[in-house]
Amino acid sequence: MGFINLDRISFNPLLPEVKQVMIDAINSDLHNPSSQHKAGEQAAEKLADARQQVANLVNAGNAKEIVFTSGGTESVNHAIKGTAMANREKGSHIVTTNIEHNAVLRSIKRLSNQGFKVTSLPVDAAGRVDPAAVEDAITDETILVSVMHSNNETGTIQPIAEIGEVTRRKKVLFHCDAVDSVGVVPVDVEKLNVDLLSFASNPFSGPTGVGGLYIRRGTRIFPLLDGGVQENNKRGGTENLVGIIGMGKAAELAVQHMEERIGQMQALKDYLAEQLPEYIDEYIVNTDPAHSLPNLLNISLKYIEGESVMLMLDEENLAVATKSACATGSLRASHVLLSLGLSHADAQGTLVVSWGSDHTRADIDKFLASLAGVVNTLRSMSPLYQKA
Amino acid sequence: MGFINLDRISFNPLLPEVKQVMIDAINSDLHNPSSQHKAGEQAAEKLADARQQVANLVNAGNAKEIVFTSGGTESVNHAIKGTAMANREKGSHIVTTNIEHNAVLRSIKRLSNQGFKVTSLPVDAAGRVDPAAVEDAITDETILVSVMHSNNETGTIQPIAEIGEVTRRKKVLFHCDAVDSVGVVPVDVEKLNVDLLSFASNPFSGPTGVGGLYIRRGTRIFPLLDGGVQENNKRGGTENLVGIIGMGKAAELAVQHMEERIGQMQALKDYLAEQLPEYIDEYIVNTDPAHSLPNLLNISLKYIEGESVMLMLDEENLAVATKSACATGSLRASHVLLSLGLSHADAQGTLVVSWGSDHTRADIDKFLASLAGVVNTLRSMSPLYQKA
Repeated sequence: MGFINLDRISFNPLLPEVKQVMIDAINSDLHNPSSQHKAGEQAAEKLADARQQVANLVNAGNAKEIVFTSGGTESVNHAIKGTAMANREKGSHIVTTNIEHNAVLRSIKRLSNQGFKVTSLPVDAAGRVDPAAVEDAITDETILVSVMHSNNETGTIQPIAEIGEVTRRKKVLFHCDAVDSVGVVPVDVEKLNVDLLSFASNPFSGPTGVGGLYIRRGTRIFPLLDGGVQENNKRGGTENLVGIIGMGKAAELAVQHMEERIGQMQALKDYLAEQLPEYIDEYIVNTDPAHSLPNLLNISLKYIEGESVMLMLDEENLAVATKSACATGSLRASHVLLSLGLSHADAQGTLVVSWGSDHTRADIDKFLASLAGVVNTLRSMSPLYQKA
Repeated sequence: MGFINLDRISFNPLLPEVKQVMIDAINSDLHNPSSQHKAGEQAAEKLADARQQVANLVNAGNAKEIVFTSGGTESVNHAIKGTAMANREKGSHIVTTNIEHNAVLRSIKRLSNQGFKVTSLPVDAAGRVDPAAVEDAITDETILVSVMHSNNETGTIQPIAEIGEVTRRKKVLFHCDAVDSVGVVPVDVEKLNVDLLSFASNPFSGPTGVGGLYIRRGTRIFPLLDGGVQENNKRGGTENLVGIIGMGKAAELAVQHMEERIGQMQALKDYLAEQLPEYIDEYIVNTDPAHSLPNLLNISLKYIEGESVMLMLDEENLAVATKSACATGSLRASHVLLSLGLSHADAQGTLVVSWGSDHTRADIDKFLASLAGVVNTLRSMSPLYQKA
């Protein structure tokens, strides 16, 4: 049987059109876009085209508000550390949530070690933050609010536009980590009222190691990568032009096909959620049905370890994840799931199943059949299950 | 006439073998190396292979001492800011030189704004730092010395091994920005006595937007990109695997062909230096003949503007640079050339001519003939020249 990759939250294969523009870029030896001779100008035009394609994807009014980065993690570090350090004279308080990605958590932890004060807000049982709680947490010292758009483990989407209304009214900078949302669902920096938005290229089938940071014009921020005058003086370093051109093409395709892709992915999600009880019992769905990504379902299987399930499915050529790939090797239970109120045991039984618009019901059927077998096998060996 | 690119310090075309491995990587849809299923393991093996290839290039004893980055600028920012912040309790004094790349200068400037004290050492007329001056500058408060291997504008190479002996004896961390040297000339972290070494892939004909940072085992340093556990917990973010694989192949080829390439490039440099007086007069060579890269010559043409020369050569399909591409748009004279003792006027008349091992004497001949015509034209219009 062929390999079925239901771990798309960790990696999306590049679209054929994206591969082609990257290969063309490799073969055409585009020069350094900062060089002032003709060869440099040709490269600069390609860079400008990609920047406009990406600006269109998030509805940035001016393409100069887009900074190309090496991915979501750099974008997040730049947004958080760059605004914190640049606005330190105004205050040193940051508001965030308990369920952020490690890039946000650890960037803020780094700042807290340097004297910044942090308020981290809880989420409700559905995994969502209350905009009123954000408002209550903001003080005269607050310089930044950082809340993710969709959670990378559960897919649950936060009320970003409502939080953005609060931050705008309170005149506090608002950063949104939208790495798993941009290019997958509509993300519009105007509608969301954000000042900074972090995203990456691979979630919409562009290359890994390339991302973007939207910085609203007028936002006070320092570079994270100090150096040359690239990226409108916001990020030094010769650009990864091959990757950026791939990201631009992927952004263009994401704009063109978003509704169609969402429809296909949501249909698979509905099918999976509907079929799941036919195959297994005693599980918890950690993805909020009302507000979530169309391409991901987070399930905790009671009495067994998600990692064992993942490894046994791998033997059957089925890839799924147990948590963020960025947390591989950590034995700790997911902080996101614990924040939802799950027990350690239930959190350890978690699978993150994710797909693309190119998957089929047959893929889901195969997954469910294999999952049922694996769950039966593991539970038959589980003392916890016997006791229950 | 075809385009002759003598601006290789800004961009090197990828080698055919490098293009091929990158295209193969694009087409093979390598998964996220952090994923624990089989698809992830295959990607992780490719990543490990590239890390070993790069470790071999700089003679790192353990491949885990190599961190892949988005390029030289990120490597430099990581090395400087990461060690400064991690060692702040020991002291807050940094020693550097007046001729560093903007990535170093501005990273250190950022730290100085946060309370770090900086001693910036001058260079002699040849453009070199005195290791004894480094020793004198080190105090009990010094936590880091940062000196570049070769200068990106003049190609002049610093006495890094001697400075490394000083820092080792004084027990101070030593970072070397070797972006324009690694893969071009032999750079051996053991012989140089460095603790941290920054480099990039494009100078040895690998892709742009990918680089490496050597961090000697045991060096106390914080990540610059906080986030996931990638890169042995030293740099978060899903890897640019296509670029890294390209860099690995380029590193392997650089090791194999270094002596041969140096011979070819040095022969062109000797030829250019020898022929230059046959074509033009009244110029200054800013590249130290005894200690410099084989692929670059920095020349200041008296009485005229380097930028005008560059633009007129461009019309004749000849690309050269006037300064670092990272400083494009800046109207200021190069801080490197002013540090050598050049006047502002002479510094503004500068051309940075750089080549690869694939260039020929015919390319140099063509350049010299065009240069002579351009210099004559510009000097015939120059009031400064008339006066002189």
